[in-house]
Amino acid sequence: MTLTLLYVIYLIAITAEAMSGAIMGMRRGMDLFGISLLGTVTALGGGTARDVLLGHYPVGWIAHPEYLSFTIGAAIVTAFIARQMHHLRKLFLIVDGLGLVAFTVIGCDVAMGMEAHPSIVVLAGVITGIFGGLLRDILCNEVPMVLRRELYATVALFTGVLYVSLLWLGIDIQIASLAALVSGFLLRMLAIRFGWRLPQYDSENIRGLD
Amino acid sequence: MTLTLLYVIYLIAITAEAMSGAIMGMRRGMDLFGISLLGTVTALGGGTARDVLLGHYPVGWIAHPEYLSFTIGAAIVTAFIARQMHHLRKLFLIVDGLGLVAFTVIGCDVAMGMEAHPSIVVLAGVITGIFGGLLRDILCNEVPMVLRRELYATVALFTGVLYVSLLWLGIDIQIASLAALVSGFLLRMLAIRFGWRLPQYDSENIRGLD
Amino acid sequence: MTLTLLYVIYLIAITAEAMSGAIMGMRRGMDLFGISLLGTVTALGGGTARDVLLGHYPVGWIAHPEYLSFTIGAAIVTAFIARQMHHLRKLFLIVDGLGLVAFTVIGCDVAMGMEAHPSIVVLAGVITGIFGGLLRDILCNEVPMVLRRELYATVALFTGVLYVSLLWLGIDIQIASLAALVSGFLLRMLAIRFGWRLPQYDSENIRGLD
Repeated sequence: MTLTLLYVIYLIAITAEAMSGAIMGMRRGMDLFGISLLGTVTALGGGTARDVLLGHYPVGWIAHPEYLSFTIGAAIVTAFIARQMHHLRKLFLIVDGLGLVAFTVIGCDVAMGMEAHPSIVVLAGVITGIFGGLLRDILCNEVPMVLRRELYATVALFTGVLYVSLLWLGIDIQIASLAALVSGFLLRMLAIRFGWRLPQYDSENIRGLD
Repeated sequence: MTLTLLYVIYLIAITAEAMSGAIMGMRRGMDLFGISLLGTVTALGGGTARDVLLGHYPVGWIAHPEYLSFTIGAAIVTAFIARQMHHLRKLFLIVDGLGLVAFTVIGCDVAMGMEAHPSIVVLAGVITGIFGGLLRDILCNEVPMVLRRELYATVALFTGVLYVSLLWLGIDIQIASLAALVSGFLLRMLAIRFGWRLPQYDSENIRGLD
Repeated sequence: MTLTLLYVIYLIAITAEAMSGAIMGMRRGMDLFGISLLGTVTALGGGTARDVLLGHYPVGWIAHPEYLSFTIGAAIVTAFIARQMHHLRKLFLIVDGLGLVAFTVIGCDVAMGMEAHPSIVVLAGVITGIFGGLLRDILCNEVPMVLRRELYATVALFTGVLYVSLLWLGIDIQIASLAALVSGFLLRMLAIRFGWRLPQYDSENIRGLD
């Protein structure tokens, strides 16, 4: 049951991520092809980075090309309705938060299936959760937001650590993944609501080493 | 016969792409090493990205290290004749167009050899065609031109779809690849001549979702 | 004996590289998570790029998750002592130089273990030596310094060529690796001391091809 739920959340999430990527591409003056590619990279880049780093072939969207119709379709729809989409901003943040925790749990599952070390399992979850946004920002010539912003990457880390810990304690995998999804999602919503963030650094006072 | 023709076009194309990468590196104040690396990434980055994503090992230039002598040689020659090279601009655009369609057809062939889904075959062709330029622009700290410019990525997509469709219709592979090469190349030349491009977006009017 | 020495140098070097990455992240306003990730990418990105390109799985830090405690630990420590670290600038340059040549020799060894062509062995060494810094600069939205600065990449190339040549001449691997380490390190120190660099190009006078 949880697997089906995860899968549905996953499809909704890649659609939402593709839309966020497409909007960012439109704001950089990209054409329809660029928007589709940027949307796809945003949605599927995390899972792709995880699979390439783990040597887990075939990569997700090569085994399931139907994912590409979701992301490309979402990007093209976005090109037509983008002017209206800021009305959906709150809905988007909710779906994006759901996607973040779903990506993380799915990433942990892939690494566990390869019998990786627990720390690698958590990291595979985090990479799945955040690398899509990271690649999107690199393509848009930005210092990646996930490295700077409120508890985004930290939510992925929290979700992964909680999930792996619950499994290690012998909790049933369905309950563990549900608990991780719900807790991670709540943390993300609270972080947005109250503007929580990790400490950042006063860059003026720090001299480089080169 | 077509295979040999493809191979010759490929060698000419990686030479030309390496030169374009080297020139861009020189304009960013890179040294001789940086120019060689940027030229090589521009020329071989598309095939490398395709091979890594498909899990198609060994990667092209590792199986054929002689490709590296072409790209590094081309970059070093460029360092000495760059001031004269803008006279070759038209020739370069023609060779670049040939390379784009040759890379695409070669990329499709690799994915077909792995019995990938037709949509993945097309995408492998597109990735082979455009990722070299995309990686070059990332290394030069630019929003990639292939995501913004006139029908560049679209030509790769057109070439790949035409090639896969002709094969699906049962056309002989030599005829199919020649037809895709010629049609894709003509489309690219027409796009340059008449400044065709996909619709871009008025970035001022679009609000982000974050 | 050399192997143990190489291993100790490697651990010291990834710690130093992680610190350099962390400092650069702090100067870009990253949070603690971003600093840890940037430090880790700087330290382990070269070996990761090499392993993915060679298809050499599992990737280093997946086989040895303990490397991650070094890089993440170093990044977190850096976050607390960064204001004092410029006093360590000279020590850092020495450790960074040691790391560069150690990464290169280790990278050559990995490719030789896969029976790669000698030019690929050298290139695997160079990639291991420089790609961490290159990825760090891409994440920080800079044109990579290793493509522009004094003999950094060139030291990796020199070290790799010397190492492979000595082995080809039949020299014992322990002596060959020690000779390559020492010579490469001296070249780097001399390059820093006297500001040696490869010729760069007067970017104003060069017109692009697009």
